[in-house]
Formats: sequence, structure tokens, C-alpha cells
Amino acid sequence: MSLTPRLIVPDPDTAAAYYQKAMGAEEVFRAQDESGRVMVVVLRVGGSPLSLSPAVTDWGWLSPDDVGGSPVLLEAEFDDQDAVAARMVEGGGTVVVPVENRPYGKREGRLRDPFGHLWIVTGDLR
Amino acid sequence: MSLTPRLIVPDPDTAAAYYQKAMGAEEVFRAQDESGRVMVVVLRVGGSPLSLSPAVTDWGWLSPDDVGGSPVLLEAEFDDQDAVAARMVEGGGTVVVPVENRPYGKREGRLRDPFGHLWIVTGDLR
Repeated sequence: MSLTPRLIVPDPDTAAAYYQKAMGAEEVFRAQDESGRVMVVVLRVGGSPLSLSPAVTDWGWLSPDDVGGSPVLLEAEFDDQDAVAARMVEGGGTVVVPVENRPYGKREGRLRDPFGHLWIVTGDLR
Repeated sequence: MSLTPRLIVPDPDTAAAYYQKAMGAEEVFRAQDESGRVMVVVLRVGGSPLSLSPAVTDWGWLSPDDVGGSPVLLEAEFDDQDAVAARMVEGGGTVVVPVENRPYGKREGRLRDPFGHLWIVTGDLR
């Protein structure tokens, strides 16, 4: 069994470039339809898979802007969470809760990426 | 690095019981606040982590009902995807797209669980 969160985004290529630059994600697979439209891009972020698909209203594939938010927090653990958060903001993300040491033993914060997906950027105290 | 999708749900215990029964998920961790309220339940579904937290509007932790849907599809691979889908429906989920063999070499379907989260239930052709 494997579990892959598939994020619906306005444009998978734009989103893939953002996650590659901000989080060091690597592209491992992509599939296009007959017209050449990118229907899915699969990334690996560290050891974990993450996939991206375009919004297709007729199929119920809705982006955060279409839905009006997101009920899923993507909790991602990094060695350099401060740098990841800084690069997320440089690329157009916004800080919801700053990256700070927390009493429960993690240094973490919460960010909204430019596509409206919500991230907990976490890691060890420093 | 690890990536854990955290699903915001009305009640983490109810949701944990549902994913345990439907998907064979196992609970590996939970944390409560000072009043005893469950703030996070961490499950493993096959080899992958999945966590659950309650809706807390003030924190921007919103459930699918609060948001009006979800822009994240949880793509989960099983050996017995037909049985998983059947158990998801028995527990109150709804079929969006039936589990069927697809021309791209997967047997899969799409379901909405009782809490409004969206699942691609997938696996090998049979």
C-alpha cells in the first residue's frame, strides 16, 4: 500500500517548479492527455511521493481557489525548515504561523503556498 | 524528509475508526490537549502515515464541510481495492467514480468518505 496526496492546482508545471525550488522536490513521472495537456506530475519530496493535477471542474478536480480553501494540512519534515519556509515565501507563499521552536519539541510553522495548499513545515528544534 | 497528509475532520476518533475498518489503518500515536481533547491521531495505512485533527476554526483548521469540499485527492493503493471501496461505502462513504479497470493499466475508482475527504482507491488490474 502507498498513499500519495494529489494536489489540484491551476497549472501542474508551475506548481512543480515551485515545489522543486522551495522544497527540493524531484519530478519522477508525468502523464499528458492526447492533446498534450499535463494531467499529472508525480514528485518526490524527500522520500515521499506527492502528485499534482490540474483543476478540471467537470471531474470534480477543484483547486483551493475553486473550493475556497483546503481541509488538508501537508505536514512536511525538513532538516532546514527555516530555509524551506523562506523559499516558499520568496516564491509567492504566505506565512500563516511563523517557524518557531514549539513546546512540544518541534521547530515548525504553517504556510499557504501560492496555489492555496496548506503546509506545516516542521523539523527538529534548533 | 517525510510528508504526512493531515486530514481535518469533525471528530478524529470517529474518523480513525472508519479508516481502520475500511482500509486496515493502524493507530500509531495520539496527542491530547490539557482538557483531554484529541488534537491529532496518527495512523499508518499500509506503509504510509496519515494523521487526523479536529476542526478548529480559530486556527484555520477547517473540515471539508467547513470549506465546502477538498482540493486534495488521497490516492491510496491496495491489493483489494474493491473490498476497500465496499467497506468505505458501508461506513457511510459515497462512490464518485466506480472501481473499474482503466485503460491506463490500473483498477481504480474515486470515493468521498463520510467526512468529505476524497480518495482515489487504486491498485493493479484484475
